[in-house]
Amino acid sequence: MIFFKRTTHIKAAFLGLFSLLLSSVASAGSHPNLVITIDDVKLMRQAIKGEGQFAMAYNDLKAQVDEQIKQPITVPVPKDGGGGYTHERHKKNYQVMYNAGIIYQLSEDDKYADYVRDMLLEYAALYPTLDVHPKRKVKSQNPGKLFWQSLNEAMWLVYTIQAYDLIYDSLSAAQVKVIEDDLIRPVSLFTSEGQPSTFNKVHNHGTWATAGVGMAGYVLDEPEWVEKSLYDLDKSGKGGFIKQLEMLFSPQGYYNEGPYYQRFALLPFVTFAKAIENNEPQRNIFEYRDGVLLKAIDTTIQLSYNGLFFPINDAIKSKGIDTIELVHGVTAAYGLTNDTGYLDIAKKQKQTILSGDGLKVAQALDNQMQTPYEFRSVAFGDGNDGKQGALVVMRTQVGGDQAVLFKPAAQGLGHGHFDKLTWQFYDRGNEIVSDYGAARFLNVEAKFGGRYLPENETYAKHTVAHNTVVVDETSHFNANVKVGNNNHPTLNYFTTNEFGTVANGSISSAYKNVELERTLALINLPELDSTITLDIFNANAKTKHQFDLPLHYKGQLIDTSFDLKANASQLSALGSNNGYQHLWLKAQATPQNGLAKVTWLNDNGRFYTQTSLVSGDEEFLFTQIGANDPLFNLRNENGFIRRVEDQKQHTFVSILEPHGEYNPSKEYTLEAVSRVSAANYIEQGNLLLVHLIIKNKAYLVAINKAHSKASNTFTFKNKSFTLNDRLGVYALKNN
Amino acid sequence: MIFFKRTTHIKAAFLGLFSLLLSSVASAGSHPNLVITIDDVKLMRQAIKGEGQFAMAYNDLKAQVDEQIKQPITVPVPKDGGGGYTHERHKKNYQVMYNAGIIYQLSEDDKYADYVRDMLLEYAALYPTLDVHPKRKVKSQNPGKLFWQSLNEAMWLVYTIQAYDLIYDSLSAAQVKVIEDDLIRPVSLFTSEGQPSTFNKVHNHGTWATAGVGMAGYVLDEPEWVEKSLYDLDKSGKGGFIKQLEMLFSPQGYYNEGPYYQRFALLPFVTFAKAIENNEPQRNIFEYRDGVLLKAIDTTIQLSYNGLFFPINDAIKSKGIDTIELVHGVTAAYGLTNDTGYLDIAKKQKQTILSGDGLKVAQALDNQMQTPYEFRSVAFGDGNDGKQGALVVMRTQVGGDQAVLFKPAAQGLGHGHFDKLTWQFYDRGNEIVSDYGAARFLNVEAKFGGRYLPENETYAKHTVAHNTVVVDETSHFNANVKVGNNNHPTLNYFTTNEFGTVANGSISSAYKNVELERTLALINLPELDSTITLDIFNANAKTKHQFDLPLHYKGQLIDTSFDLKANASQLSALGSNNGYQHLWLKAQATPQNGLAKVTWLNDNGRFYTQTSLVSGDEEFLFTQIGANDPLFNLRNENGFIRRVEDQKQHTFVSILEPHGEYNPSKEYTLEAVSRVSAANYIEQGNLLLVHLIIKNKAYLVAINKAHSKASNTFTFKNKSFTLNDRLGVYALKNN
Repeated sequence: MIFFKRTTHIKAAFLGLFSLLLSSVASAGSHPNLVITIDDVKLMRQAIKGEGQFAMAYNDLKAQVDEQIKQPITVPVPKDGGGGYTHERHKKNYQVMYNAGIIYQLSEDDKYADYVRDMLLEYAALYPTLDVHPKRKVKSQNPGKLFWQSLNEAMWLVYTIQAYDLIYDSLSAAQVKVIEDDLIRPVSLFTSEGQPSTFNKVHNHGTWATAGVGMAGYVLDEPEWVEKSLYDLDKSGKGGFIKQLEMLFSPQGYYNEGPYYQRFALLPFVTFAKAIENNEPQRNIFEYRDGVLLKAIDTTIQLSYNGLFFPINDAIKSKGIDTIELVHGVTAAYGLTNDTGYLDIAKKQKQTILSGDGLKVAQALDNQMQTPYEFRSVAFGDGNDGKQGALVVMRTQVGGDQAVLFKPAAQGLGHGHFDKLTWQFYDRGNEIVSDYGAARFLNVEAKFGGRYLPENETYAKHTVAHNTVVVDETSHFNANVKVGNNNHPTLNYFTTNEFGTVANGSISSAYKNVELERTLALINLPELDSTITLDIFNANAKTKHQFDLPLHYKGQLIDTSFDLKANASQLSALGSNNGYQHLWLKAQATPQNGLAKVTWLNDNGRFYTQTSLVSGDEEFLFTQIGANDPLFNLRNENGFIRRVEDQKQHTFVSILEPHGEYNPSKEYTLEAVSRVSAANYIEQGNLLLVHLIIKNKAYLVAINKAHSKASNTFTFKNKSFTLNDRLGVYALKNN
Repeated sequence: MIFFKRTTHIKAAFLGLFSLLLSSVASAGSHPNLVITIDDVKLMRQAIKGEGQFAMAYNDLKAQVDEQIKQPITVPVPKDGGGGYTHERHKKNYQVMYNAGIIYQLSEDDKYADYVRDMLLEYAALYPTLDVHPKRKVKSQNPGKLFWQSLNEAMWLVYTIQAYDLIYDSLSAAQVKVIEDDLIRPVSLFTSEGQPSTFNKVHNHGTWATAGVGMAGYVLDEPEWVEKSLYDLDKSGKGGFIKQLEMLFSPQGYYNEGPYYQRFALLPFVTFAKAIENNEPQRNIFEYRDGVLLKAIDTTIQLSYNGLFFPINDAIKSKGIDTIELVHGVTAAYGLTNDTGYLDIAKKQKQTILSGDGLKVAQALDNQMQTPYEFRSVAFGDGNDGKQGALVVMRTQVGGDQAVLFKPAAQGLGHGHFDKLTWQFYDRGNEIVSDYGAARFLNVEAKFGGRYLPENETYAKHTVAHNTVVVDETSHFNANVKVGNNNHPTLNYFTTNEFGTVANGSISSAYKNVELERTLALINLPELDSTITLDIFNANAKTKHQFDLPLHYKGQLIDTSFDLKANASQLSALGSNNGYQHLWLKAQATPQNGLAKVTWLNDNGRFYTQTSLVSGDEEFLFTQIGANDPLFNLRNENGFIRRVEDQKQHTFVSILEPHGEYNPSKEYTLEAVSRVSAANYIEQGNLLLVHLIIKNKAYLVAINKAHSKASNTFTFKNKSFTLNDRLGVYALKNN
């Protein structure tokens, strides 16, 4: 049988239209051989006899599996939708089968294999009796049988095929026949031929499906399944795993929906790729597109701050680098590269994968081989060509670990927010200028069944929920996802040098006949052990409009440099639509010409001042989230909106500055007051100049808009300056 | 001169009216001999040559002092009030003199002594030229000369006399004369004879004054100063340090103003007592009142949770056991007792005092001698007789570290809040049912000069800002401090046993003709790895009233078991006075007869449900702090108020239950729903009975109100029970 399998495999490889190389080292017939190989198992068996993290992780998992397999096997007839009993039971079943399979391989104790076998046989008895799931969505093209949607069915297959592979050697031929004929084959066929629209879809749902079916192809020696998984059911290459790798990631490995979804999508990519690498190394899957998969893992790490992902789009804000998907990703990345920077991340993840790569990571960490992982300032080009705008990360360590996230990025499909050119600011581990993320209490039944809350549509996705310009109280693209997906901002430039990092993005399709352009710069002022963030937002329209620029901050308002007119005893919602209906208007003000300062204090005792350069035409509206929220679904966070009315053009200029410390425990307060005492903004040809005095030191910040990086000599206040790069900062003599 | 001094000292001791023993080991003339003695110095000099925490602390302080003494000495003419330049400069001066004095003794490097000497000489030149401070309060009876109030002057003396003692040996006789005649003597006389009303006052301001003058008495060998400090200027014992020890602490060492002020008051008590012990051990100062000073230190620790003090009265909530005053206290306590439990606290304080006791602590910690400090359930009797109500702490470790603070305590003077019988709840390190604390941003100039905010008076002190009954929207004692100080609740009983802890307090003077009585019980349910807190609040009046019972919770509202009528697009303040004007009314409801549940989720992912037993006559008002707060001075925290109108009597019964976990990072949510499915409250003679079903288990909780603890047999649902203590919990067969 083994010989026969190998023969068919080779034949299939010859036939495979898109196979590039002859499959000379076909290993079908050896089990396990997906993510975990026979060689891995040998080393892992050795390692668990010793001490160290790997042995600890093994013992932990074994204890957990021992508890679980004490319970009777339960394979209920599918009945409930997401979150319901049968749904959760089938999810738990595939996880326990996978874990028990690993423990079987490592402990060589048959009871674990027997448990998996018995459960598989129960599934094999149930599956042929099932029609599509009773809780499927009406008219849905992707129902499951065990689950209400085929995404879960594909996930079940990804885990279960690995569990089957892990215990294969313990089974009789008769058992193999029952499990394959009555379970694995029908599930694989239902997941592939049974719903081409999902299987061929260039989307993360498609990735799970192709990963499950492709791995089943390796285990059951069905090379055609592998081919179809890689290159579409018709093997045209129009769909399938390879197309997904080509389309879903940018050349730098950025995933269009943002890091929250990127880490979710990562798992089937990494899992299937490891299985391909182990079975058909000649496909060089990890080298595809200049190593895009590895870049995707690395980019996911880069898109985090203090362990948490930047919460753009529909993101749950507590998700971060310790999510299991990225643990798998980092484990694979270290396995592939031996880059000890990944060990730094692995150490923070505090989880050990029981696999060959997991063993490598654990042993390296036992030997303290980790070196600091370098977080960089990067513009991640968006879209599969990397040219559909960009997600920009600026970082510095001057005055504390800081990051600016700037988003001249594409819409990011259905989970994208209408937040073109928005930004966020982070300092000393904390979110300072914030993004609401998704309005959702994951799995909390009382909160709309744990699904996305209605307020995700009515507030969180809208432009006003972000830190970017809203025109006439309507959202970008009029909140139409399709229009959003078909249009994207442009990243005009991005530069990082010793002075800091600057980027400029623009979009003219968010609103008809309105051009929005933003320049953001994170500037190092090492003499002051401090930074400032410059924000220059230009809105340019053919006709007159209202322009609003919100800033959502985390903390308590401490001071304003202008008088507030507060709505003290009665509050009203700020508007009636597009998210405005969820904002209470707490106070308003119209600062005079000059510097308008708003200072707040965060929970960790640091002050932040936004200094706006105003000329008397901006109104400041102080808001709190929570209006028209009868079920208390929203967090009551604070912000303020700078508003100009009836203008064709307006440039919002501001400086954000972290400062001082509030330490009531030790009874001291330092630098509670903004140090910026003067600031001017000047456009001079292609140059954006900001002249400011901070802590009695005068600076000139110069940004060169021109597309060339050529040397530029300019004169300011009768003094000559040379700017060799896009960004320069000059200390001036005080005057 | 030394002989002469000793003679006078012995003579003075004979004369001292209240000296109990002959001063046989008088050590006057040896320097230093206040908190730090010559013997201490020998050991400390040895220790800094080695490794360990003490040497590290020495090196840290030395580096800091080295920086400071590089600066020119500045002794400005007093001009500014609290927080201003000259105020802060003089505060820094006494700290640097004290620190430099210690470094001189340990390093034996004259430059440190010379620095202190030069600064003292500058003060000696300045002081005789000064009149009372220009920024003193008009009509104030306690102005300073260096500072606007004499409290700061006394603090200056407490530090400076120790600095002087530390460098005494380095001075020439001529320098001694100048410093003593022109500075120490005049300051001491101004602080004592110069303002008898402060010096004799039984109040923490008096403690600073007597500590400073008394220590000066030891150093300058003026035993009369010591006597007057101990027993009033007229040595009658009506005022002075001994009277303060008698009056300001309860027999258990509880300080009437609460832990925030207790730790502040502690420093001069501990400092002066150490100086007395070192100079006149025969006074047995630490044994006074059955060791009340040691009890005061211990009680300060007991009045903390997760490192922070219970924030009753005007408390800054971030103050905790690591405050420098308590570091001194714990250091002294370990020095006196060798109780290794104090080392557990010292370890958490992460600070080393450079003193003899500090060395003992550091060496013990180097040797890891700490044992867990035991936090207990205690009723701390209030008032100097311990009979003016009590501050009750209930603790348990069932289901996680929990504490209930219950406050049938006295008013606590001018910083007290009108919050009789209020409570707070803590779980797993977090505040769950909260107290606002003080409305203040300490030292933040923009927030009302860093002083107590106006909202401290208009909101934070008022009854509605706490978790206790408000009658007719007026505060306890009609918010009159004097009336509050003259009346106090009664602690009717307190018991702690294996079932949990129960206490009952009442007060009939908070409102005219209204009796308020509350029973609180923290109940262990170890089978469920959980607790519940029972709250039975009975209001009984001669005529009809409105009764409000607020509950201020930390977190996000998740669910209510009844429909809410939300004020969705417009909010109004709930009332116009007594703190109600600062509450927005967000929603209201009138739950039907039965169980009314409110569930919230805290920031750390745990759910809490308050289940109220209602009979259709309670209205629930959901509030948020922040109305009539035009300068954004208040934190926008959430709460709900249970209200009954037009009633002579009402009993509010409720059960608080922590449950489940929200973990969006790992994508699971456990027990998001309250487990209490039935509950009944029955009064049966002297028994309070609560029959409840939680997680499908039935329990009967019985509390015996009777003042005897005698055995009590009772029948409930035809079954017989025996209650031997005040509190019993019985698992029932489910029915």
